[in-house]
Amino acid sequence: MNVTDLSAQANSLLQSIREGNTRVLGRSISFIENEVPGYAELLEALEDGYSSVIGITGPPGSGKSTLVDGLVGQWVQQGKKVAVLCVDPSSPFHLGALLGDRIRMSEWYNHPQVFIRSLATRGSLGGLNPKIVEISDLLKAAGFDFIIVETVGVGQSEVEISCLADTTVVVLVPEAGDEIQTMKAGLMEIADIFVVNKCDRPGADLFIKHLQSAFDFNVGGTAKEPIIVKTIALEKKGVQELAEKILLHQKNINQIHRAEILVEKAYRLIIQKRMHDINKNELMDKIQKRMQTSGFNLYQFVRQNF
Amino acid sequence: MNVTDLSAQANSLLQSIREGNTRVLGRSISFIENEVPGYAELLEALEDGYSSVIGITGPPGSGKSTLVDGLVGQWVQQGKKVAVLCVDPSSPFHLGALLGDRIRMSEWYNHPQVFIRSLATRGSLGGLNPKIVEISDLLKAAGFDFIIVETVGVGQSEVEISCLADTTVVVLVPEAGDEIQTMKAGLMEIADIFVVNKCDRPGADLFIKHLQSAFDFNVGGTAKEPIIVKTIALEKKGVQELAEKILLHQKNINQIHRAEILVEKAYRLIIQKRMHDINKNELMDKIQKRMQTSGFNLYQFVRQNF
Repeated sequence: MNVTDLSAQANSLLQSIREGNTRVLGRSISFIENEVPGYAELLEALEDGYSSVIGITGPPGSGKSTLVDGLVGQWVQQGKKVAVLCVDPSSPFHLGALLGDRIRMSEWYNHPQVFIRSLATRGSLGGLNPKIVEISDLLKAAGFDFIIVETVGVGQSEVEISCLADTTVVVLVPEAGDEIQTMKAGLMEIADIFVVNKCDRPGADLFIKHLQSAFDFNVGGTAKEPIIVKTIALEKKGVQELAEKILLHQKNINQIHRAEILVEKAYRLIIQKRMHDINKNELMDKIQKRMQTSGFNLYQFVRQNF
Repeated sequence: MNVTDLSAQANSLLQSIREGNTRVLGRSISFIENEVPGYAELLEALEDGYSSVIGITGPPGSGKSTLVDGLVGQWVQQGKKVAVLCVDPSSPFHLGALLGDRIRMSEWYNHPQVFIRSLATRGSLGGLNPKIVEISDLLKAAGFDFIIVETVGVGQSEVEISCLADTTVVVLVPEAGDEIQTMKAGLMEIADIFVVNKCDRPGADLFIKHLQSAFDFNVGGTAKEPIIVKTIALEKKGVQELAEKILLHQKNINQIHRAEILVEKAYRLIIQKRMHDINKNELMDKIQKRMQTSGFNLYQFVRQNF
């Protein structure tokens, strides 16, 4: 296909997506993931939507997925369309299947207002899917009111999603108490809202106290006042309040924050673009040739050739 | 300082490092991490050493650090110099301190033949320290016989280290049995040697059987025969055998594998270099200007500007 055809195809895909055709949406996400010819035209045809992107992160076992289920329920009841992207760490170790399995059980999987997709992290910059920016922009154009990105907080993904999401929710459980001291710096950076889930467990109130005092002792006082929501996700308790707090946070997002998110998104796109033309086979040929001469230095090689 | 001065400084640092001055070595690593002027000259002055780089990875709690302690002991006894780099995931959650704490307890911390350094992952491409290639090359030039890179297998770091290390050791415990099925593809890719640690626990033999049969059923039979070593790291059992198997694997490394490692290293260096000139402040200015016009599309913006 030539360029005009690809643009025409992009517009026709977009129209179907806007009309709510989830089959075409799913296929278009795969186009983007696999960089099928025409995917660039599709992205350049996107008009910005007005979706809220909400990052939900936390350690394994904190109940993120149950909470996401609850939030979806809240917003579906209000007639909203909700998309959920589960970023599945593709570790060869045991974490791989955690999110994937959970999401397949979701009661929302076949609901017409809901779109759920699991994304692998493999080969990504950091801990997110390499096409997370593009996919969430496509969902915006598809008219979803909320886009929830769920990540397991075990690597870098929680830091990255906090740069890309409008609102970042960090889910903790009371047992995390002892760890607050060491993690507070990182947490203050990324969380807009803290959820203390399973808050019927012993030590919940003490944990919240510690969480608050971690912020009180913030040097220079630059950290914002933490928004803390108590939930028991399995019993849907506190979920409505969380949904409200998220909306409130969204309302207060200013133009500078929006620009910051765009900068992060642009940064990821630029890096990806610049990685594209590094051909490992060519690199192999060059390096094998140079290895035969004596005194090979990798740093000189890279400076001279790239 | 001008370029000649920086080159002279690089050579003088390198001389001290070769003479075994660990204070200068430590300082030079910090130079590289912080990109202090002169660090590029230092890297270009490196001559390739003949160290073995050994990646040790596995899930939290599998006993990696105890095993590393044991390996260091084996090689120190043989008069070898050993460097250990602990890649510490800088997650805001609880994994952050795992390696750091462990390594501070090591009996080898102040031994003249041993150099131990903990490296944070933050801001890295994937799960390793952004300067892992440069730092391990400096250690090679410093004359270490073995460079052990220890990573927690919870994100991408285990996949990355397997591309950069001569020999990759994956440490598992018998309890991991049920997970073998789902993880076998990933594990076969990265492991040169499997360690089944805590092999006095129930189910160890069954676990090893499962591990072997995972390879037997490998479609197309492309996977190499797995090297499996049983250890009880806390009692130093099996550690000598592991050290021997690592040496045996090192001996069999061919030129193509060496070139592949160089390609991976070059690839990381090229990406880093290309990321360097992306200035987020300039990006912010440009994006804010463009946001004022209507119909802003991020993908057009990136294509046109980068």
